[in-house]
Amino acid sequence: MKIISLDQAEKMTVNMEGAVGVTKQMPLSRKDGVPVYSFRVFTVEPGGHTPYHHHNYEHMNYIVSGQGALVNEDGEELPVKAGDFALVLPNEQHNYKNTHPTEPLVLICGVPKAFE
Amino acid sequence: MKIISLDQAEKMTVNMEGAVGVTKQMPLSRKDGVPVYSFRVFTVEPGGHTPYHHHNYEHMNYIVSGQGALVNEDGEELPVKAGDFALVLPNEQHNYKNTHPTEPLVLICGVPKAFE
Repeated sequence: MKIISLDQAEKMTVNMEGAVGVTKQMPLSRKDGVPVYSFRVFTVEPGGHTPYHHHNYEHMNYIVSGQGALVNEDGEELPVKAGDFALVLPNEQHNYKNTHPTEPLVLICGVPKAFE
Repeated sequence: MKIISLDQAEKMTVNMEGAVGVTKQMPLSRKDGVPVYSFRVFTVEPGGHTPYHHHNYEHMNYIVSGQGALVNEDGEELPVKAGDFALVLPNEQHNYKNTHPTEPLVLICGVPKAFE
């Protein structure tokens, strides 16, 4: 059993190509002995976005705060806001953009632990 | 790809033995084609609690709002509040209690899809 507040989880800058203004936290991850899934949290600053890409595993997302867009494989920007859940299936092209002028976009991103 | 707000997910009363004042929503589940994990949301009313039990799969939790306690296998009440993450490992005895006098406790509970 582990309890951790988001504030306690170390923040790391995401240096991946295509990522702008993104930090990552890993409140529940392999080092905690997760059996199947890991929970990461991404914070996307105003003007920032995650890489527009695809991969062979899914994302299970919950928007903790802020507002943004989930861009689909056709380039359409689907609006998301605090309290929304999103499922990005394996091999779907996608990224998250922050669309608010001043507030960060904070989202939980669950993935199979091998890909944390 | 699917986006759904928590408000849009149907609320069902949990009638499981040991559950008091608990409703369940399933924003991302097998019917959406989740590959590995399902995301349920439990709302525990003031004075309510989930069953004190164990099972052979984990819980991955995020506290959306409210305050409560995660009870461990020794019966200790570990406080949790909005913004906290919790990992309950397989076979750990546990339950969640709402400890606030008036506000619901709302939490995401991720599990392998077979157990949604």
